[in-house]
Amino acid sequence: MSENNNRPIRVALLGAGTVGSQTARLLVEQSDELASRIGRPMELVGVAVLDPSSVTDPWIERSLLTTDAAELASRADIVIELIGGIEPARTFLLTAIESGASVVTANKALLAKHGPELYEAAARQGVDIYFEAAVGGAIPIVRPLRESLVGDKVLSVMGIVNGTTNYILDEMTTKGIGFDEALRDAQAKGFAEADPTADIEGHDAAAKAAIMALLAFHTDVRIDDVPVEGIAHITAGDIAAASAEHKVIKLLAVVEQTDAGISARVYPALLDETHPLATVHGSFNAVFVKAEAADDLMFYGRGAGGAPTASAVVGDVVTEARHIAQHSLGPVIPIYANLPKAPLNASKAAFAVRFLIHDRPGVLTAIAKEFSDREISINGVNQDIKPTQHDPGYSGEVQQLRIVTHLCDEITLRDAVKAVSQLDAVTGDASIIRVLN
Amino acid sequence: MSENNNRPIRVALLGAGTVGSQTARLLVEQSDELASRIGRPMELVGVAVLDPSSVTDPWIERSLLTTDAAELASRADIVIELIGGIEPARTFLLTAIESGASVVTANKALLAKHGPELYEAAARQGVDIYFEAAVGGAIPIVRPLRESLVGDKVLSVMGIVNGTTNYILDEMTTKGIGFDEALRDAQAKGFAEADPTADIEGHDAAAKAAIMALLAFHTDVRIDDVPVEGIAHITAGDIAAASAEHKVIKLLAVVEQTDAGISARVYPALLDETHPLATVHGSFNAVFVKAEAADDLMFYGRGAGGAPTASAVVGDVVTEARHIAQHSLGPVIPIYANLPKAPLNASKAAFAVRFLIHDRPGVLTAIAKEFSDREISINGVNQDIKPTQHDPGYSGEVQQLRIVTHLCDEITLRDAVKAVSQLDAVTGDASIIRVLN
Repeated sequence: MSENNNRPIRVALLGAGTVGSQTARLLVEQSDELASRIGRPMELVGVAVLDPSSVTDPWIERSLLTTDAAELASRADIVIELIGGIEPARTFLLTAIESGASVVTANKALLAKHGPELYEAAARQGVDIYFEAAVGGAIPIVRPLRESLVGDKVLSVMGIVNGTTNYILDEMTTKGIGFDEALRDAQAKGFAEADPTADIEGHDAAAKAAIMALLAFHTDVRIDDVPVEGIAHITAGDIAAASAEHKVIKLLAVVEQTDAGISARVYPALLDETHPLATVHGSFNAVFVKAEAADDLMFYGRGAGGAPTASAVVGDVVTEARHIAQHSLGPVIPIYANLPKAPLNASKAAFAVRFLIHDRPGVLTAIAKEFSDREISINGVNQDIKPTQHDPGYSGEVQQLRIVTHLCDEITLRDAVKAVSQLDAVTGDASIIRVLN
Repeated sequence: MSENNNRPIRVALLGAGTVGSQTARLLVEQSDELASRIGRPMELVGVAVLDPSSVTDPWIERSLLTTDAAELASRADIVIELIGGIEPARTFLLTAIESGASVVTANKALLAKHGPELYEAAARQGVDIYFEAAVGGAIPIVRPLRESLVGDKVLSVMGIVNGTTNYILDEMTTKGIGFDEALRDAQAKGFAEADPTADIEGHDAAAKAAIMALLAFHTDVRIDDVPVEGIAHITAGDIAAASAEHKVIKLLAVVEQTDAGISARVYPALLDETHPLATVHGSFNAVFVKAEAADDLMFYGRGAGGAPTASAVVGDVVTEARHIAQHSLGPVIPIYANLPKAPLNASKAAFAVRFLIHDRPGVLTAIAKEFSDREISINGVNQDIKPTQHDPGYSGEVQQLRIVTHLCDEITLRDAVKAVSQLDAVTGDASIIRVLN
């Protein structure tokens, strides 16, 4: 607590996009308030951007702008990295850490690929690395996993951690529209990028799953360890069938400890309407945690957007500034457990599989045979819900056949679906959605 | 990070009730795992109880038991206080702090009454005080307010922070039973104490409101600053009327910043069924936070119970043990803002007021006159919902009259309700429930 030195704590900001701009605003507009909370003044000493002329925010003084991120980082106590991507972000962060600065980042792609090296570099140098904004935007989920639950045993984490896909699925559910229309709507409203691939194919959620799995299980998990299924094959007919069963379809990042090891995955899943995650609408995110002693926990809020994400970034900056004012340190990220990674088909699951078929005599028999040949037991078959004109491959002739399995091996299931898809009477893309209880 | 000394960090536990017992279990059963997370072993050096012969938990070694809490506390690095109440808990904590130990407590009553003295003593001595379990049990809400949101401006916090009252209201809602029956059911199932006063009159929630208000607004707020309304007057008829409007009744701890100052209150409120807090069932707790940049956040989980509360306690213990291993410190609790406290009637609100009446000619006119005389504008009057045999004062003769006001001054509203209650045709207790949007 002894602190004679009252010089301002120097903060460098790398990147002034949507989040960077709002981060600068909070740091500048609330500087007196933040100084009171820290017990020492804090000063934004520079903002590094590629093109200073593009920055027009009234709260960013022109004189703070620079194109030399490395030089700026070298004269700061805390470096905030909001440029995104792997390089040059990784080099900037490592250089800042080596020079003794603590770092705050929202860069999920970087952490999911090189997190352990960064965590280890920070621990070695005796500086901190904070990244609350990298998962779930404004929602405190990193700090609960690093600190609040550190006395407990995390069993599983299930998160709606991508706002774009949740918005699309929620629009399809509430408005009965198809995937393409919902995606265009999301793009028009700014909830989806012009190139939405990383979101709709689940790669963004996979990065967050890797980060959460490492924190939950103290084991080195990277994005390449996370199998991914996206939502592009989900139709209005799938949503209608789910609704008829009082279920909703959500894209989930699921991290869990099983008998076969730990697993981190991203897949669309059917959830009962009564599940707390089922009520997460629009672009909101939520993370549901099961722990041995704490039991069920849920964290809910805005998973993206400039101001919400900046709230998490500045929370980290102030936390770190307090450490600096107290000559103190935050927790290191211990990766000691080396738990095995469960093979893809280690756990059995139930699946809802939807085919589009031409309804000729013998079709159902042929399809059922592909399942029974592989010893996959069928729980229910349903042809009541019709495809709609919102769905790709729609024609009045095509029927929707939905098969819900009992627990089965995933690899075998995918093999059966592939075999069925090759039958003459089957058309279009099948969808495979996991059924959770 | 330099740490030559690898002697175990000594932890003393004061109290071995439901939470204390589970805390000891987690510390003992997970000791290897926790040592890995801390980077140094941690040892439970003693458990202080009034009657050692009453402790039969297999994970608590007999030799650790003592009746001398003060002596035990004097030989620990971290003292966990789980005995509850004001004294001797306060003296034990202050003595531990003075002797240089950091402390972890779940004692909401003590913190709501003497928190600022304890926070200041800890800051002065350069030790930490953690109390995640004091609000919301297993739910991380203290740490988010102290750290995650420290870069943001909290506008309001609305919490379902008492499991007993939420269980009672939820049973009344889902089963259509009356208050008395729901309370007996809660007692039978262990969700309510034999003497349920502190819960149903809202005092438990008020203590939590005071703690949250201090953290959110950096201002000295104590339990005596928190006006309280309980739920004992709420009838099955009130619940039925709410359901007919697609609303639910919840007992809320509400902490907010208004133009007139800050306020912390506990009251029953009508919430739309679509509000995230409306879906919090049974004895679960949830806290809904609005912040300037983060926007809406919600935290949900088990607000009570031995193991869930112990999860939060041990999370704090491990966090503090990491600080000790790093010669480091957690954040102090800055109380710098001295914001004014809003007077009771500073903000106008809408209310649903329910009277039990003998339906004679002129009754409605007489009642309406008491409102109009005080310039309280009425938004709706409803006599459709009948009282039920579940409700006190029920007889076939008695009707339920429900008046929903426009925004009005609360003191004037209470005056009108008092005047109406004295009319001849009015019987039983009225209920006054705030209408939130």
